[in-house]
Amino acid sequence: MYRTHTCGELTLNSVGEYVTLCGWVQRVRDKGGLIWIDLRDRYGITQLILEEGKSNQEIIDKAKKLGREFVVKVSGNVIERASKNPKMTTGDIEIFVDTIEIVNQSKLPPFTIEDQTDGGDELRMKYRYLDLRRTPVKNNLMLRHRIAIETRNYLDKQNFIEVETPVLMKSTPEGARDFVVPSRMSPGEFYALPQSPQTFKQLLMVAGFDCYYQIVKCFRDEDLRADRQPEFTQIDCEMSFVDQDDILNTFEGLIKYLFKTVKQIEFAEIFPRMTFDDAMRFYGSDKPDIRFGMTFVELNDLVRGFGFKVFDEAELIVGINVHGCADYTRKQIDQLTEFVKKPQIGASGLIYVRYNIDETVKSSVDKFFNEEQLKKWVHLFNSKPGDLILILAGASLLTRKALGSLRLEMADRLGLRNPDVFAPLWVVDFPLLEWDEEEMRYFAMHHPFTSPKFNDIDLLDTDPSKVHANAYDLVINGVEIGGGSIRIFDKLLQQKMFQVLGFTQEEAQNQFGFLMNAFEYGAPPHGGIALGFDRLVSLFGGSDSIRDFIAFPKNNAGRDVMIDAPSQIAKKQLDELGLIVVQKGK
Amino acid sequence: MYRTHTCGELTLNSVGEYVTLCGWVQRVRDKGGLIWIDLRDRYGITQLILEEGKSNQEIIDKAKKLGREFVVKVSGNVIERASKNPKMTTGDIEIFVDTIEIVNQSKLPPFTIEDQTDGGDELRMKYRYLDLRRTPVKNNLMLRHRIAIETRNYLDKQNFIEVETPVLMKSTPEGARDFVVPSRMSPGEFYALPQSPQTFKQLLMVAGFDCYYQIVKCFRDEDLRADRQPEFTQIDCEMSFVDQDDILNTFEGLIKYLFKTVKQIEFAEIFPRMTFDDAMRFYGSDKPDIRFGMTFVELNDLVRGFGFKVFDEAELIVGINVHGCADYTRKQIDQLTEFVKKPQIGASGLIYVRYNIDETVKSSVDKFFNEEQLKKWVHLFNSKPGDLILILAGASLLTRKALGSLRLEMADRLGLRNPDVFAPLWVVDFPLLEWDEEEMRYFAMHHPFTSPKFNDIDLLDTDPSKVHANAYDLVINGVEIGGGSIRIFDKLLQQKMFQVLGFTQEEAQNQFGFLMNAFEYGAPPHGGIALGFDRLVSLFGGSDSIRDFIAFPKNNAGRDVMIDAPSQIAKKQLDELGLIVVQKGK
Repeated sequence: MYRTHTCGELTLNSVGEYVTLCGWVQRVRDKGGLIWIDLRDRYGITQLILEEGKSNQEIIDKAKKLGREFVVKVSGNVIERASKNPKMTTGDIEIFVDTIEIVNQSKLPPFTIEDQTDGGDELRMKYRYLDLRRTPVKNNLMLRHRIAIETRNYLDKQNFIEVETPVLMKSTPEGARDFVVPSRMSPGEFYALPQSPQTFKQLLMVAGFDCYYQIVKCFRDEDLRADRQPEFTQIDCEMSFVDQDDILNTFEGLIKYLFKTVKQIEFAEIFPRMTFDDAMRFYGSDKPDIRFGMTFVELNDLVRGFGFKVFDEAELIVGINVHGCADYTRKQIDQLTEFVKKPQIGASGLIYVRYNIDETVKSSVDKFFNEEQLKKWVHLFNSKPGDLILILAGASLLTRKALGSLRLEMADRLGLRNPDVFAPLWVVDFPLLEWDEEEMRYFAMHHPFTSPKFNDIDLLDTDPSKVHANAYDLVINGVEIGGGSIRIFDKLLQQKMFQVLGFTQEEAQNQFGFLMNAFEYGAPPHGGIALGFDRLVSLFGGSDSIRDFIAFPKNNAGRDVMIDAPSQIAKKQLDELGLIVVQKGK
Repeated sequence: MYRTHTCGELTLNSVGEYVTLCGWVQRVRDKGGLIWIDLRDRYGITQLILEEGKSNQEIIDKAKKLGREFVVKVSGNVIERASKNPKMTTGDIEIFVDTIEIVNQSKLPPFTIEDQTDGGDELRMKYRYLDLRRTPVKNNLMLRHRIAIETRNYLDKQNFIEVETPVLMKSTPEGARDFVVPSRMSPGEFYALPQSPQTFKQLLMVAGFDCYYQIVKCFRDEDLRADRQPEFTQIDCEMSFVDQDDILNTFEGLIKYLFKTVKQIEFAEIFPRMTFDDAMRFYGSDKPDIRFGMTFVELNDLVRGFGFKVFDEAELIVGINVHGCADYTRKQIDQLTEFVKKPQIGASGLIYVRYNIDETVKSSVDKFFNEEQLKKWVHLFNSKPGDLILILAGASLLTRKALGSLRLEMADRLGLRNPDVFAPLWVVDFPLLEWDEEEMRYFAMHHPFTSPKFNDIDLLDTDPSKVHANAYDLVINGVEIGGGSIRIFDKLLQQKMFQVLGFTQEEAQNQFGFLMNAFEYGAPPHGGIALGFDRLVSLFGGSDSIRDFIAFPKNNAGRDVMIDAPSQIAKKQLDELGLIVVQKGK
């Protein structure tokens, strides 16, 4: 038995007890006659005390030599502290040290093990085992554990069964790029790591499992962005004999349960539901942040025909009313103009109207529109004196998206995106297909197994772009937390879908024949959802970065810099796999 | 809303209710005037009834056309059954059908969806989604889910945190063969899939996580046997500031909790603990089945020097007493002789002594030993009249193992291995190292991170084979359910260990430098265990085969015959990975 207590539990109730603690030396303060040591473990910090004259000199000498992050085992009596710290559970007591055993030494860590560390990203990743000692990072992973276990308990109570699906599965070119695993027993052949267990969970529905879930690792070999990882975790679910409302209600229940149990936040109302078309029309995004308004107002009818070429030639003129920003300086407006003109946003310019406190109106297009006309705009936007109207014009989709970005930028500036406020939203009625200009064919907006809306099925032949899907996304604070759909469960419709996506019948059968064959043996109607677990946890943790909520993340080059992976393997192993590595530059 | 109830819940309490059920047609019985349909879903079977004259003729015609495994949606009134079936929850009622909707048709399944099916292994695997509809297979996976969730709840209450470790990690040649994943971003380099999260969980201990667990997929590219799968699941755990007893007690607690909550079996006593040496000496196995006795008795001193060359030249003469088998026929004895001479067992012959009911003695070595001498054997074995003594002689280790196999064979014949009886056992004090004759070097018996016993450390230099480890296995009914050890947490000792295992300093640093470096920053003493989840579940399910407890297992060639994986991938993808597949036969 190494210890009698952890460093996070002793209080006044234990005064007088002789205890043994283990942990890491957070810091040593030597104030002449008195030495204090902060001893840390996962559970907290307990203060140790030694006193010249009262403590054994040998122990005092040992204490003075302790370095940061040394591992020690300490015994002594619990005493009441002279100067208490009400912020800490253990703040009322300290341990009067009787013995100290140095269990392990530590070199000086390359960065401080404090809430605010002096270590940069790269260094912290290389020494991730030290970074994980820091309270905020440790708490992130404890939050992750808590959300996982509460998710499981909720779904278990709703009759869901967790079923593990294979990690070594089959490569399919549809969707993102697969990671592949060469087979030694079948040289020249490869397994693929799952991008999601989609087909397997559908097979479980065919198998009659009714309600399935899995918290499961998925893999995508994509070029990485800040919030993408090559391996990520999903809460993956599927249900049989359900329609869209059943699924939305079930998983709204899960999210509410998690907010309540993990964050003590109750949502009394049902989550709002918005069509994809409305989301694009009023927010310029399929994942609107509805913690604040600033919804889009279209001006096409009001502003054309006044000789302003930008408006007259634009497919769409659309704007937002920004509350209280009429006093934005020229410089601030210029910054916004630069913002919308960035290549990734792509607007060609920004028009503004100041509705001043004195109810005068001033705009960047005063040359074309007089005060009376501008007042009509102000009326349409329902602006109040002191507001600023920002307008973009151009091609419809691009302009909406650009204004969507500007809307978020303004909200950030105005502090309207409080991470402690949560605004969930279901976005529904997505289009089934997206046209890809490069490959000149349709792609499935969700995936090829998503069911078209029943009334739209005939449009698959005549106007596929018009077909809507029984597909839905869960959005919280402008972040897509998850998405799903009602699935196709009929072999002929699934074949039709592959045909629309440009598969030959042979390709479809070769890649997804096992699923279509399964549909011939009594497939039930079914649908499901997958929630991005890393993202859900980071949202609960109030952060944008999923990396802070993953124990051992990879960097943007897909490397684990701590263990130095990926790495070369032995020629013997390549030979067994029947593979040759092409030399660089060839 | 598809249904008001499942097929497993309606009872007499619901008589008179109008309900809607969905499910699969198990069978249709048409008895002239009455038609019964058994409707099945995950939750049970509900009987439907239609009656000529009373039911709508159109519905009756539809019912008559229903085939096995059709998916239907049925509405009607719950009525009390004339002839009740007390074996079924729903056995008191039936549904008088009002409407039937055929939701999906089914081709005739290739095998019957019954508890005892007519489908062979290969066919059931190809149509696994149909096999999973069978109650025993479905129940296996529900058992798996139940054990997983109870495991998590137990460990959560014990302060364990589930942390997900990477699936894309680093290849290490020590241990079994890795599955590897070529990296596209670093062509010519590979990730490896984890054989276990061993190094990561140790880093989590260095990080101060204190108690870690994970139910996690692991991977080994080995040639497969009946109860091996290329991907398998572990309950993986690690604790800090613990000694061996802490770990044994914690996980004995888990196993007892699982037996109690899942199987309603209580273990009042602590699990017996046996040293590796005793296990080999008394059972000829490091995973003895202690549901029955038949422990080994050594005869060396008693039987040498009587001119029987086999004994005189043998390193070890050892036997078991088999109760009540003195009347085994010549043919039965011959079968046993054949059994022990099988190449995988490898004994050269079998000596027997019958201790007959009339207290006479008859042996296969009467030429060398008289009745008086044999009576001494009988005495040593503590045999009762009617018992049979079976003796093997030869090289020590081989003979023990062979007798261990014979012991299990005899227990099988005598029905002493009741799958409803559970006999857990801790085997402790394993040797640290095993000598490999082929490679002429030591291998770690558990893995290179296992700590030698403190008092044996000096032997690492002088006689490594004598070093014992703080390593332990959990064995239940002769099945190794898991194993673990106290780990090395000191850089120098870890370096020493790699040196004993034949690593150059450079190789050790290159492959495991990240872990040894971590040990320099305040590594706590720690240890852990990994339990084979597939095997644990199959033990609870009373089966020898883990495959029956995995939703989508691979066959012995590592193939998923349902989805046909592994398979070839496109040349474009190989090019991106910088790989060339060597043609077959080259």
